[in-house]
Amino acid sequence: MEHEPRDPDFDERVRASFGQQNMMQTMGMSIAALAPGAIDIVFDHDDRFTQQHGFAHGGFIATALDTACGFAALTLMAPEAAVLTVEYKINYLRPASGATYRASAHVIKAGRTLTNCEATVTADGNEKPVATMTATLISLVDTGIKD
Amino acid sequence: MEHEPRDPDFDERVRASFGQQNMMQTMGMSIAALAPGAIDIVFDHDDRFTQQHGFAHGGFIATALDTACGFAALTLMAPEAAVLTVEYKINYLRPASGATYRASAHVIKAGRTLTNCEATVTADGNEKPVATMTATLISLVDTGIKD
Amino acid sequence: MEHEPRDPDFDERVRASFGQQNMMQTMGMSIAALAPGAIDIVFDHDDRFTQQHGFAHGGFIATALDTACGFAALTLMAPEAAVLTVEYKINYLRPASGATYRASAHVIKAGRTLTNCEATVTADGNEKPVATMTATLISLVDTGIKD
Amino acid sequence: MEHEPRDPDFDERVRASFGQQNMMQTMGMSIAALAPGAIDIVFDHDDRFTQQHGFAHGGFIATALDTACGFAALTLMAPEAAVLTVEYKINYLRPASGATYRASAHVIKAGRTLTNCEATVTADGNEKPVATMTATLISLVDTGIKD
Repeated sequence: MEHEPRDPDFDERVRASFGQQNMMQTMGMSIAALAPGAIDIVFDHDDRFTQQHGFAHGGFIATALDTACGFAALTLMAPEAAVLTVEYKINYLRPASGATYRASAHVIKAGRTLTNCEATVTADGNEKPVATMTATLISLVDTGIKD
Repeated sequence: MEHEPRDPDFDERVRASFGQQNMMQTMGMSIAALAPGAIDIVFDHDDRFTQQHGFAHGGFIATALDTACGFAALTLMAPEAAVLTVEYKINYLRPASGATYRASAHVIKAGRTLTNCEATVTADGNEKPVATMTATLISLVDTGIKD
Repeated sequence: MEHEPRDPDFDERVRASFGQQNMMQTMGMSIAALAPGAIDIVFDHDDRFTQQHGFAHGGFIATALDTACGFAALTLMAPEAAVLTVEYKINYLRPASGATYRASAHVIKAGRTLTNCEATVTADGNEKPVATMTATLISLVDTGIKD
Repeated sequence: MEHEPRDPDFDERVRASFGQQNMMQTMGMSIAALAPGAIDIVFDHDDRFTQQHGFAHGGFIATALDTACGFAALTLMAPEAAVLTVEYKINYLRPASGATYRASAHVIKAGRTLTNCEATVTADGNEKPVATMTATLISLVDTGIKD
């Protein structure tokens, strides 16, 4: 599905906003690909963010997916908008035992107020997803919050 | 709803497993209350885990809720079981702008294989939730993974 | 949680809108209780709406829960608003083998644009839920659609 | 993704089980395509199953998606298994104002106990989905219930 960004400077704006998420820096997550309606975030296993069996914590995986959905949505929002997550569901399909991860999100529908995204995270270049997410994001304007 | 734990030593076992989650220690999250089928996890705002507007990142909040659901479920599982998250949905209701947070989870139904939990996170002692979660957890036995 | 309706005539308006849902009449569903931010819908087992094992179909149960969430939300919306469902998640906890059912929904948060609800359905007066739902509803104004 | 069915007679078994869902017949839903891990269910607008604005009721749409996910999962389950829905989330993307609908589901992961599916429903042959669903199904054996 092709998307037309409302903000011609979406690339710069999304990267700037991403750069202000302390959590992305703390977790070593970075943008590997960015296009209208789509983003890839990559990150490595980190022993600080594991659960009790030594796998990557579900919250570590969810953080990447949630952030990917948010910024995929922001690529298509108006310049004056801020993006917030309304809700998401995540399904954990396989233990997160990789060395490297890629979270890929894309927009399913970009509405005036709400945007829907889908995202998956894969490990070590394998095709089979570790987890999948569907999310609803909201475009906020005139709230004093801006991306 | 009252629950009868299958493991008389559930308290010790849950605390030990929680202690092995590096992510809990990294994020400064600790157990404030623990009972059969229920747990409270408390944590403070941390500038390392913020999103682009300076609020607590959704992934920070989700990590606490997911972990709370997992350990609420584990309180009622058999001694030889390990717990993994199958899926959850989170709804973000208000910006997470608190100084302190409490994630409270309780079991809705403890089945032989699957357990359902609900959880909410509140900020600064306010009654109104910042976010709510419903989750499905699975009890794994004979997989080589144990809590 | 107490809610203040924005529309003093919410009761009449919700019942009129409910009455225009052909699906409610087709499925024999009716309002058993209505208050600001809350609704109960009752219905009976119906052999026309079963799944392959003879239980009530999940779609039959979900229809009652979704409708309950929608009208619980509508009780608190402005007189000129229409309500639509943005999303919901449903967890099926037990086989739906009852003779009678009650779907109870209440509002968790009534925002300007979005409203969050929780709902459960019980069978034959038992306390333990057959299924639970969390839903996000949207208030639409100036779209030509009205409740 | 290619899937290898465990039951060589999956096609016959799924169609027989589908035929026993009274709800499918009541709602005029039928199988338009069936393959290992995938199914299409088609149906028409029906004035008996509308919401208050005259659109197809969300429960009508959800019933098709839920059923599609269930039978997509069943195509890959063992001959002695029965399928039940654990949970799903549905996002409603557009008003359901079509004359004809197609619900397409496919398996994302077929595990020993749990299966994950995705599904979308489209209207009148348009590519853009009316709604999307992600679902978790469970394979039940030795419970006295069989598909």
